[in-house]
Amino acid sequence: MYVLHYAPDNASLIVRLALMELDQPHRAVLVDRRVRAQDGAAYRRLNPNGLIPALETPEGALFETGAILLWLSERHGALAPQPGDPARGDFLKWLFFVSNTLHADARLAFYADRHAGQGADVAAFLAATQDRIAGHLALLDAMAATRPAWFSPDVPSVLTLYVSCLLRWLALYPAETLGWLDLARYPALHAVAAATERRPSARQAALIEGLGDTIFTAPSYACPPEGSAT
Amino acid sequence: MYVLHYAPDNASLIVRLALMELDQPHRAVLVDRRVRAQDGAAYRRLNPNGLIPALETPEGALFETGAILLWLSERHGALAPQPGDPARGDFLKWLFFVSNTLHADARLAFYADRHAGQGADVAAFLAATQDRIAGHLALLDAMAATRPAWFSPDVPSVLTLYVSCLLRWLALYPAETLGWLDLARYPALHAVAAATERRPSARQAALIEGLGDTIFTAPSYACPPEGSAT
Repeated sequence: MYVLHYAPDNASLIVRLALMELDQPHRAVLVDRRVRAQDGAAYRRLNPNGLIPALETPEGALFETGAILLWLSERHGALAPQPGDPARGDFLKWLFFVSNTLHADARLAFYADRHAGQGADVAAFLAATQDRIAGHLALLDAMAATRPAWFSPDVPSVLTLYVSCLLRWLALYPAETLGWLDLARYPALHAVAAATERRPSARQAALIEGLGDTIFTAPSYACPPEGSAT
Repeated sequence: MYVLHYAPDNASLIVRLALMELDQPHRAVLVDRRVRAQDGAAYRRLNPNGLIPALETPEGALFETGAILLWLSERHGALAPQPGDPARGDFLKWLFFVSNTLHADARLAFYADRHAGQGADVAAFLAATQDRIAGHLALLDAMAATRPAWFSPDVPSVLTLYVSCLLRWLALYPAETLGWLDLARYPALHAVAAATERRPSARQAALIEGLGDTIFTAPSYACPPEGSAT
């Protein structure tokens, strides 16, 4: 059985949704951010860089959201075009784009105070980062408008789960810019997020992690039954 | 035949090395950075985000270095543990780590002047970024010290090619901090880089792109026969 090391409303949510969509039994173990458990020796043995999530598998502990998603999709032959599928390359290029461009810039925005240079105008740094993010979302929206089989409102994929969660966090964090993200500017992404949040996986995950309703299209801050989202 | 859209000493170098190691015929087409050809309509049709490289394949144009490397390794069944291999998960987690953490922070360092917040002390921003990068390299070095089959001096993989190239660029860019990277602190990475630069693929690529000798362990600035590295 998989063991998912999670914190509520953290990147582990994406992996939880994938496990649910794959119908894979799993146990979720809280990483308590309030005591910075992610920096403890036990967690660092699972993920030496201390980021959440980590997933224990029969083949060892995995980390990196994108890697876990890709590995699960290969292992269970679902939620992504498989190797040899003519759509594999397109899927991979957008998965990496989301992981190393959209998600990477999202982290800069969420923790702008830490990442802006010493003496920087943090608000200006954040605004520049969010401008870049708006550009990334426009590219993703143009891709989504072509409705590839691996990114459509009709059927989930690891990438629809990943992007839906990022849209949630981009809207909510950092709290100072709550409301900056106008999902109406990205209609194809909005359609995917709306379809994803109606699925049983999202409703169940929302209950478990205390995320409320319309968790992707009109999110509110988490009120988790255990642990802390920040 | 593959068509690689490249600029000398850019991320396209990693893909060129992979194509050579896979013995795949390919044609390299210069993207002339001096006239910002990467922003032109023709290139944006290949890669809408305007980053180099792009690879034309029988299944369409690919972008994102990590995605191209993974796709090539799957397509040709080499340079990486394949799906189903018990080492697949470990390989994927470090590939994503390199792509979205090491490479992403490397970009912040290379273009620190652009990424530091308005009014920021760019030197302080760069120093903080390079501190983080040193931490990433320490994690990678600890992994490399275990000599997994997919990351060792004995046999190339898409990940040894990727990391070797990043070590080169981290040493060289930005020019203001030339010399900051002390490869001796990362002996397992140094061994991989030294083995990689001795291979015929690296020697041939160095000739084509004007990279000089010891291109990974003691690099010097490129003197390319065509195009511009910056």
